[in-house]
Amino acid sequence: MADITASRRVRRTPFTPGVEAAGVRGYTVYNHTLLATRFGHDFVDDYHHLKRHVQVWDVACERQVSVRGPDAGHLMQLISPRDLGRMADDQCYYIPIIDRAGGMLNDPVAVKHSRDHFWLSIADGDLLQYLLGVADALGFNVEIDEPDVSPLAVQGPRADDLMARVFGDAVRDIRFFRYRRLPFEGHEMVVARSGWSKQGGFEIYVDDFDLGMPLWNRLFEAGEDLEVRAGCPNLIERVEGGLLSFGNDMTRENTPFEAGLGKFVNSPANYLGKAALLARPARRMIRPLAIAGDLPPCDRLWPVLAGGRQVGQVTSAVHSPDFGINVAIGMIGDSHWDAGAKVEVETQDGMRDAVVQAKFWI
Amino acid sequence: MADITASRRVRRTPFTPGVEAAGVRGYTVYNHTLLATRFGHDFVDDYHHLKRHVQVWDVACERQVSVRGPDAGHLMQLISPRDLGRMADDQCYYIPIIDRAGGMLNDPVAVKHSRDHFWLSIADGDLLQYLLGVADALGFNVEIDEPDVSPLAVQGPRADDLMARVFGDAVRDIRFFRYRRLPFEGHEMVVARSGWSKQGGFEIYVDDFDLGMPLWNRLFEAGEDLEVRAGCPNLIERVEGGLLSFGNDMTRENTPFEAGLGKFVNSPANYLGKAALLARPARRMIRPLAIAGDLPPCDRLWPVLAGGRQVGQVTSAVHSPDFGINVAIGMIGDSHWDAGAKVEVETQDGMRDAVVQAKFWI
Repeated sequence: MADITASRRVRRTPFTPGVEAAGVRGYTVYNHTLLATRFGHDFVDDYHHLKRHVQVWDVACERQVSVRGPDAGHLMQLISPRDLGRMADDQCYYIPIIDRAGGMLNDPVAVKHSRDHFWLSIADGDLLQYLLGVADALGFNVEIDEPDVSPLAVQGPRADDLMARVFGDAVRDIRFFRYRRLPFEGHEMVVARSGWSKQGGFEIYVDDFDLGMPLWNRLFEAGEDLEVRAGCPNLIERVEGGLLSFGNDMTRENTPFEAGLGKFVNSPANYLGKAALLARPARRMIRPLAIAGDLPPCDRLWPVLAGGRQVGQVTSAVHSPDFGINVAIGMIGDSHWDAGAKVEVETQDGMRDAVVQAKFWI
Repeated sequence: MADITASRRVRRTPFTPGVEAAGVRGYTVYNHTLLATRFGHDFVDDYHHLKRHVQVWDVACERQVSVRGPDAGHLMQLISPRDLGRMADDQCYYIPIIDRAGGMLNDPVAVKHSRDHFWLSIADGDLLQYLLGVADALGFNVEIDEPDVSPLAVQGPRADDLMARVFGDAVRDIRFFRYRRLPFEGHEMVVARSGWSKQGGFEIYVDDFDLGMPLWNRLFEAGEDLEVRAGCPNLIERVEGGLLSFGNDMTRENTPFEAGLGKFVNSPANYLGKAALLARPARRMIRPLAIAGDLPPCDRLWPVLAGGRQVGQVTSAVHSPDFGINVAIGMIGDSHWDAGAKVEVETQDGMRDAVVQAKFWI
């Protein structure tokens, strides 16, 4: 490919100096922010390392939309089909956000601070603008902005050990998708057990730009004997685990049902998309696929065919060393969404045979 | 820097094969879409070429937000301070979009198709989500989506000659910020006299992905003796000309007044941000600056200081070969916004002397 060109619009993060010093070789742009995709070491080696050791990821690109004020709860109710009624004040919820037609606008993790204050840790897309549009139109009493908060992820089987050395043993007691406020250099930060891998770990919501590199350095000093490494979300691992990427695997054209997120459609509230969503049963759905042969990079939609007719599309695909096959995520029509269905995938390098799988590789 | 990594989320355009064949060396990401920043030839040579010849730019990243339906006009009135009352059906308007607090959300070019149908050719940011939020909240009867439309720009002093060879002499009669529907391979396309340079030219709104490369190729065949070259928005030329970049030079923190766009605040309608905007006189404003010395890339905010106190920030800066100085765009407080004011600019490589200018270099 070609170099990424920096500008104020493609933002550096508090951790960019650390990422650069670790030998970043590839970037993508996510929420107008740099996100590393590749480091000096081998891509497959990084994958094995993530599954065995511990990595520190600059995921500052998971920008926060802060929703605060007397109408915050009401606004949250209007935009998501997920029931937030029993959400605790130290809890994180994965919540699809939908428009009035039931189409997905984003799939953030909501972090609840109080009844009147939430952060939405967003996937790629300016979800802030949708919330602002709704709030402005209705004259809500709520502040919506992007605070100085940059998540840093610590992922992998040794994540607890590394985090305990920096934040103390309290981290071991944090439950999945819960958080605690823990001090670093006298400053309390939200530390949640979450992250975009299936290997376990934490996300630290660093809410002071100037504490970014001190925290980065402390983690690397503390983790030297744990073989800690600078990393980034790993395509192989996330496809194996079925972690969806908004904008890749589903878009506004898809409902939460199509994205396989039907269990998060349970709100009793009268959210904006309720009538439309409940009237749109899924006729296509996210499915794991195993694809045969050699694959080029999946940098565009790959049509999925059966008997010469398009029955779906593949949106993420890569070779899995651990499973010895090409693992893929696709949106497949109901005629071929059952496990075992045989289909063909049209890549830029030609057709490949594929089989729909019963489940992801976890 | 490092490579840009392709994925479905960072979209290729209809013209990407042409851009690749032309030897692209650098990309940025703009509206989730690839935008070239650098080709094989020298950056400064490209700048001179743009001012003397003609270039074809893949600006498909200027995505369109289509607003269509009985409430389209009402929605347009709510979101912009610009009076659209006298806009003709073949006209393009540069319109700031603001929120209820008067902060800028984008600065698109609106293309009017009819009273009930507009395209907004947007700067970097998912403005679609704001429009959708307003329309969803108010239950408007309007369709808001991103159509298959990819602008291709033809810019430079020989643009009329090149375009006439492909679209006929009718292009010569198109007035500034007006458009005509002209046929290419039997398909009518919007061809507007507009573009993100001060060298003159056109933007072709290619509304069929599959016509992208045929049009690209035709332009290059027709323009061989005009020395046509694949190009991209040129940082030097646009800073000299004072063309603002939303997300770089102004953000939601700024009003249109601060961005120097006060002349577009003239709507008699009761737009959402009216009360707040009119109550926020500008105490800082976009200004041209000349900066002394050698400059590193302006890839972050540079504080502007006077007497040790911050009085503004520089957001775009680069050396201008034609003017023999470093040209820059900054947001400067009222204590130092007069022409001739002496300030200091804090770059990542140290302090530089600078002088506020009376006007841009055009």
